[in-house]
Amino acid sequence: MARDPLVVFTPSGRRGHFPIGTPVVEAARRLGVDIDSVCGGRGLCGRCQIRPSVGEFAKHGIVSRAENLSPLNDVERRYDAKRGLGPGQRLSCQTQVLGDLVVDVPPDSQVHKQLVRKRAEVRDIELDPAIRLHYVEVDPPDMHTPSGDLERLLKALKAQWGLDSLDCDLRVLQTLQPVLRAGNWKVTVAIHRAQVLITVWPGFHDAAYGVAVDVGSTTIAAHLCNLSSGAVVASAGTMNPQIRFGEDLMSRVSYVMMNPGGEVQLTAAVREAIDALLREVAADAGIDKNDILNVVFVGNPIMHHLLLGISPVELGGAPFALAVNSGLTFWASEIGLSELNRGARVYTLPCIAGHVGADTAGVILSESPHLGTDITLIVDVGTNAEIVLGNKDRLLACSSPTGPAFEGAQISCGQRAAPGAIERVRIDPETLEPRFKVIGCELWSNEAGFDEAIRHIGVTGICGSGIIEVLAEMFLTGILLGDGTIDGAMAARSPRIQADGRTFSYLLHAGTPEIRILQTDVRAIQLAKAALYAGARLLMDRLGIDTVDRIVLAGAFGSHIDVKYAMILGMIPDCDLARVFSAGNAAGTGARIALLNQRARDEIAEIVRRVEKIETAVEPRFQEHFVEAMNIPHKSAPYPHLAAAVPLPAARAHTREDTSDTPGGGRRRRRRRETT
Amino acid sequence: MARDPLVVFTPSGRRGHFPIGTPVVEAARRLGVDIDSVCGGRGLCGRCQIRPSVGEFAKHGIVSRAENLSPLNDVERRYDAKRGLGPGQRLSCQTQVLGDLVVDVPPDSQVHKQLVRKRAEVRDIELDPAIRLHYVEVDPPDMHTPSGDLERLLKALKAQWGLDSLDCDLRVLQTLQPVLRAGNWKVTVAIHRAQVLITVWPGFHDAAYGVAVDVGSTTIAAHLCNLSSGAVVASAGTMNPQIRFGEDLMSRVSYVMMNPGGEVQLTAAVREAIDALLREVAADAGIDKNDILNVVFVGNPIMHHLLLGISPVELGGAPFALAVNSGLTFWASEIGLSELNRGARVYTLPCIAGHVGADTAGVILSESPHLGTDITLIVDVGTNAEIVLGNKDRLLACSSPTGPAFEGAQISCGQRAAPGAIERVRIDPETLEPRFKVIGCELWSNEAGFDEAIRHIGVTGICGSGIIEVLAEMFLTGILLGDGTIDGAMAARSPRIQADGRTFSYLLHAGTPEIRILQTDVRAIQLAKAALYAGARLLMDRLGIDTVDRIVLAGAFGSHIDVKYAMILGMIPDCDLARVFSAGNAAGTGARIALLNQRARDEIAEIVRRVEKIETAVEPRFQEHFVEAMNIPHKSAPYPHLAAAVPLPAARAHTREDTSDTPGGGRRRRRRRETT
Repeated sequence: MARDPLVVFTPSGRRGHFPIGTPVVEAARRLGVDIDSVCGGRGLCGRCQIRPSVGEFAKHGIVSRAENLSPLNDVERRYDAKRGLGPGQRLSCQTQVLGDLVVDVPPDSQVHKQLVRKRAEVRDIELDPAIRLHYVEVDPPDMHTPSGDLERLLKALKAQWGLDSLDCDLRVLQTLQPVLRAGNWKVTVAIHRAQVLITVWPGFHDAAYGVAVDVGSTTIAAHLCNLSSGAVVASAGTMNPQIRFGEDLMSRVSYVMMNPGGEVQLTAAVREAIDALLREVAADAGIDKNDILNVVFVGNPIMHHLLLGISPVELGGAPFALAVNSGLTFWASEIGLSELNRGARVYTLPCIAGHVGADTAGVILSESPHLGTDITLIVDVGTNAEIVLGNKDRLLACSSPTGPAFEGAQISCGQRAAPGAIERVRIDPETLEPRFKVIGCELWSNEAGFDEAIRHIGVTGICGSGIIEVLAEMFLTGILLGDGTIDGAMAARSPRIQADGRTFSYLLHAGTPEIRILQTDVRAIQLAKAALYAGARLLMDRLGIDTVDRIVLAGAFGSHIDVKYAMILGMIPDCDLARVFSAGNAAGTGARIALLNQRARDEIAEIVRRVEKIETAVEPRFQEHFVEAMNIPHKSAPYPHLAAAVPLPAARAHTREDTSDTPGGGRRRRRRRETT
Repeated sequence: MARDPLVVFTPSGRRGHFPIGTPVVEAARRLGVDIDSVCGGRGLCGRCQIRPSVGEFAKHGIVSRAENLSPLNDVERRYDAKRGLGPGQRLSCQTQVLGDLVVDVPPDSQVHKQLVRKRAEVRDIELDPAIRLHYVEVDPPDMHTPSGDLERLLKALKAQWGLDSLDCDLRVLQTLQPVLRAGNWKVTVAIHRAQVLITVWPGFHDAAYGVAVDVGSTTIAAHLCNLSSGAVVASAGTMNPQIRFGEDLMSRVSYVMMNPGGEVQLTAAVREAIDALLREVAADAGIDKNDILNVVFVGNPIMHHLLLGISPVELGGAPFALAVNSGLTFWASEIGLSELNRGARVYTLPCIAGHVGADTAGVILSESPHLGTDITLIVDVGTNAEIVLGNKDRLLACSSPTGPAFEGAQISCGQRAAPGAIERVRIDPETLEPRFKVIGCELWSNEAGFDEAIRHIGVTGICGSGIIEVLAEMFLTGILLGDGTIDGAMAARSPRIQADGRTFSYLLHAGTPEIRILQTDVRAIQLAKAALYAGARLLMDRLGIDTVDRIVLAGAFGSHIDVKYAMILGMIPDCDLARVFSAGNAAGTGARIALLNQRARDEIAEIVRRVEKIETAVEPRFQEHFVEAMNIPHKSAPYPHLAAAVPLPAARAHTREDTSDTPGGGRRRRRRRETT
């Protein structure tokens, strides 16, 4: 054959001619084909496996034969015996081109693997961790040309990996000499962002892990990820022990205000819990904690500041100033995380504003509103709702003070989402009789065997999603009027509507405890939903739009509620229901993205810089929107998509004079009669 | 006047026309005149003082009148009352150009002040510390455009000081919010190398200190410097407490070898001593330890490694591999220095080779052999002698194993340089009677009142410089032959030459204790001086030269000995005696230079990279030179400069058979008769 063999790599399609004897990995490298390696072509790591495709490839005008690849050699046989080659796979560093070839690079052999996410509507994660391992062979010291062990290691990293101008932690130097000698001048190093040498192991070492941590005010969740594969290898959650200093965020800030220096206790508590959680995920996955090299945190601003050892008192009052909003990188030991590799780095996502934290930054990374043309509305509901709106051109964010009603607080029979809590409700439009489901039981309350099934659980209260559904159903069946009044006139149709002083209530469950929806419960949810809607509406005003293309409900609450009911109540603006999604723990996913893809850190920094931050407290229109949004679903905003999907009741006038149940914190004022 | 006023700055001579009303500091800035400021033109720091020169300046064609400068304003009056303006001086930030002016910028007002050193032959230090203070006024938080306190601080630093892309320590963030508020949004920050914000004080703060520390194996010396003026404001020294683990370096390394983990004890000991020393210098100067922001260390490789928490065992045997040779920068807290500002940084000078440490790098910075064309030989004598040779074209370095004889060890009556030690000796060439001086007394031993003067001191032994002088004098008077034998034939001329078994001794002092120079003492010094000479000669060979232009004796020993006597003994090669200098603690001076001038750190990094490192242990010629150099002053090297200055005795043959006192560690071999 006169010409050099042609090598075609799939799936990239890159192709080139190479002399007989060229190692396949070398051909790949020269063509810029993405093939992974930790050992640098020494047949140790097995990351560079390829699969020759045998057959006639008319498209390329070649025949790719098995014998066009050099036969299995000793290194491959050793690797196969020890760690196992994939079926039909070869180590590209050990195989040579002997003739025309079509070579497939399986996804696992690519440096920048795509990690496919469960939800189809979100982008995949490209694996590109901030910390990478490199096996390297170092020159032993030579008295004729004296140089430090570090300097020879850096020289080898430059020559063998092209890594230049690296810094090195002092703590690495403290063990470098024995490690180099234990590895007989062969070591594996971990490099942070191609800039700093953070740890070193003797010999070949192929284990690097990171943890994505979502520090919530109630729970802390940690996901241990393999930095080579991107796989989540263990997950665990724990209660945030700061709860003993205050149930909600503001009470913890109050604790610090009342007890100067109290932030030290809150900081210590959360750090200890995280340390324990890191121990737990490492133990669950059966990995060495010393192989954990990176931890990424998201959390709301108060959680973020307390984790970092910054007092949150400034976040407790206007002007709600953050100490810092940028993403930060530092040693894990700087925040007292002692269970990891000594060189392990922490990265905290940036905060956006005083009430819009690193958790929201995580949500943005996860949901990527900034990548498309669709106008996306993201709401993350907690004690505050964080709201993000926009697309690739503009992005706005605000926080709205919804209060804890959506979490079941301020509701007479409310409780956290836990076994025994009513989470689903339907009301028969004719009989006005309810049926419901409780957490921990698959049956509806009117199904056979329900009583038996819940005997050990009980019906203990109603959680956030349950309260949303029961109110929406009450509205759909006419029990609840558009202005939020439980219609006393309906008492004639069902004994479940009962007078309760000057107002009425709806009896959802007659057991012990009795689960009853009071007028005050409706008012609490009205206040919360009006705040949420008003925040979203404020951002829509800024963007000059009346409808959004897509809605994402983030957070635990968002993943439990039926989006239809949320829309019936008017929590969110009208939207095609098929384009309203629950994102689950999107903040935690954002942390995982930042853990697995270093460029996501630069990306979110850039996004956060250009996000337009709206402070609802200083926006006069917020109050107007808030008042307008008290109605169910809304006093004046149309809901055409919703109306097409759900037969909404005709607007009816509320005819009773009523002064006792006015929303607005007990201020007595005469309510206008509803006429629309 | 049609033209704008002309302003001429002295001493720079920079000149330009500026509109009436231009602040003088602004005119200076536009012309690139070097004027200091911490407060950024707010009349707080007083660093920008200038002195108008009144009179006719024919050279510039102008008349500089007092009234051509705006009159003293309130800010200046306030400053003058509080801190005092210099005589005839004004704050250039408060004065405006009203007409033609000649303005002098006094040295104290220049950023890059020249610090004149005591020794005329060395270059001055240009003040340019790695850490600088900047007073800055920060925007308070604004709910309409939320941003973190740090981000607003960084914005202000960019706008007011042109500092861009700064990093910030997490530890700064932990106090940033209360500090900004305590300072009412006016703070002073310390910036390390124009890159990292390392600390912040409320309001205007004008105190920044650094410490240069020389960690010797025997003593640790610290110099506290004002980073604004460059002045040394306090100095202190302490014994290195590692001495309890071993008197000399090798015994400390042995301790670590025999006691695995023993380096932890040695590291803790030296760090504690340094911490105490830092406390001491701060107390002496009456400054707040929190104002100490930078510490620079020099030390030999073993001291360097132990300070950093690196085991020195690799330095205890071939191939003498350093863990690291580069200069390092890290937090003071990383090496347990807890007495300083939390953000304080440490810089350690680079090491050159396994036996040539950061102390030698400091000596090079201080003595600057790399700046001139003269071939300079630098020797720093301790247990090892570090030797540097070269000029701007080439620089070579090696270490030579002199052993501790020069420090008084291995000498029968030897002792450290301390009160009571004989440090100067003269021997009458006729009578062979000695006279001497002891440390702590100004009188010679033959002067009236000597006995009375030393009554409380005593004559306790002989130190390094004393042993050099007595041997040189013995050689000049013929008591000592060129081969190092005490000439028994001289016993006939003086009772001080006495038989001592098969060899002879010289009685220097008949008191209690008796100070006597034994043949073994001569041999010990011969071995040491031969090693020193051989090292220097090896470097001269490499450079292809036979003479050097300049010799610098560094270190405590070098500053105590009379260079003439060192040359008579042949410790150093021949050189014009007028060009042989004692540099004192040049290593410590180098540390001070690196403390006060950040570019010196880059400069020494570059020098150390290109220094040719010679390992005497693997150089076959070293042994040859060593043997040749046993003779006094040298078997074959001519000493024309020395001979012109000092009448050297004619070479005489040693005629006795002698096997007991052969140099070379007790190996018995038959010595050739000297015939030259």
